[in-house]
Amino acid sequence: MSMSSLCLADHFVFLVLILFLASPLTSQASSRCSNQGSQVVRNVSDIPESNYGRGGLAHITIAGAVSHGMKEIEVWLQTFSPGSRTPIHRHSCEEVFVVLKGRGTLLLGSSSSNYPGQPQEFLIFPNSTFSVPVNDPHQVWNTGEHEDLQMLVIISRPPVKVFIYEDWNVPHTAAKLKFPYYWDEECFHVPKDEL
Amino acid sequence: MSMSSLCLADHFVFLVLILFLASPLTSQASSRCSNQGSQVVRNVSDIPESNYGRGGLAHITIAGAVSHGMKEIEVWLQTFSPGSRTPIHRHSCEEVFVVLKGRGTLLLGSSSSNYPGQPQEFLIFPNSTFSVPVNDPHQVWNTGEHEDLQMLVIISRPPVKVFIYEDWNVPHTAAKLKFPYYWDEECFHVPKDEL
Repeated sequence: MSMSSLCLADHFVFLVLILFLASPLTSQASSRCSNQGSQVVRNVSDIPESNYGRGGLAHITIAGAVSHGMKEIEVWLQTFSPGSRTPIHRHSCEEVFVVLKGRGTLLLGSSSSNYPGQPQEFLIFPNSTFSVPVNDPHQVWNTGEHEDLQMLVIISRPPVKVFIYEDWNVPHTAAKLKFPYYWDEECFHVPKDEL
Repeated sequence: MSMSSLCLADHFVFLVLILFLASPLTSQASSRCSNQGSQVVRNVSDIPESNYGRGGLAHITIAGAVSHGMKEIEVWLQTFSPGSRTPIHRHSCEEVFVVLKGRGTLLLGSSSSNYPGQPQEFLIFPNSTFSVPVNDPHQVWNTGEHEDLQMLVIISRPPVKVFIYEDWNVPHTAAKLKFPYYWDEECFHVPKDEL
């Protein structure tokens, strides 16, 4: 065997090795994205939970557009550790919260001024419910010191398109679009440009 | 005072008495229908619960079109006593269930044949979730002997328009429309004929 053909063989073995090592990762991601909706009845405990890079959050998509093919509603289970919170944000869909445990604060800004402004504050508590009107800037805090805040969250028009505000004085037009949102990123396929 | 004017006075007193007796009922219904949506954060325990004439059911509309002005999603808390069940029915909206406690069976018929036919059966259990595709005929049973089956139910396109089947062999075209549905009846205002 010549030196060059040995080199080619080496490269080939190296390539096969890389593909072999990478395949479990690829197929894991692919199975997470394609198989979640295949069972009619699912155990919520079996659905992947992650903080998606956001400290203090545990998010589960119970029924989602990207993961389960929902078209009109999406249901999440979210747990916020003490002190953690959502960003200040808005979205052009309805949203309903049902607090399963813990306490916190809902902050609601204005959508009729040019920027959210000083938000109204509302206490939230176990077995409470609230809905956020379409496009109203809002934030939910776990203001407790010890207990998790756990909520079922329901939105319409999935997958959610979120506009994030750095603070309550950022103009609505300067809020930054985050799409796909954290939990939709891995599996959402951006439609190809029609050109 | 003549006999006829005495009669008129009598009628007037009678009329005032009827209006006086009826007013608490009218204003109770009116306040149930108009004030439910006025608070931003509500305690689910304070929301009226009723079986709406259906044995074994306890229904609470946590966030509804008729009661709280929702336009795209509606959230219910439903509790079925042992042996009780929904009718066999379909609706042209998405529906997601999250089982909070208890066990039972989901029955799913076909929407592609002319009638639902022999349904598929799926066990449901605490912390399970399932969604019913748009227009698929279905039924949920509490098949347990002792424990309540409690679920959060989420629908799109409220208020729900339900088509009810007497049994699994009734053609889809013969299912009977029930609209407004039981919990929407009291407060739903049928739009007046434009003529």
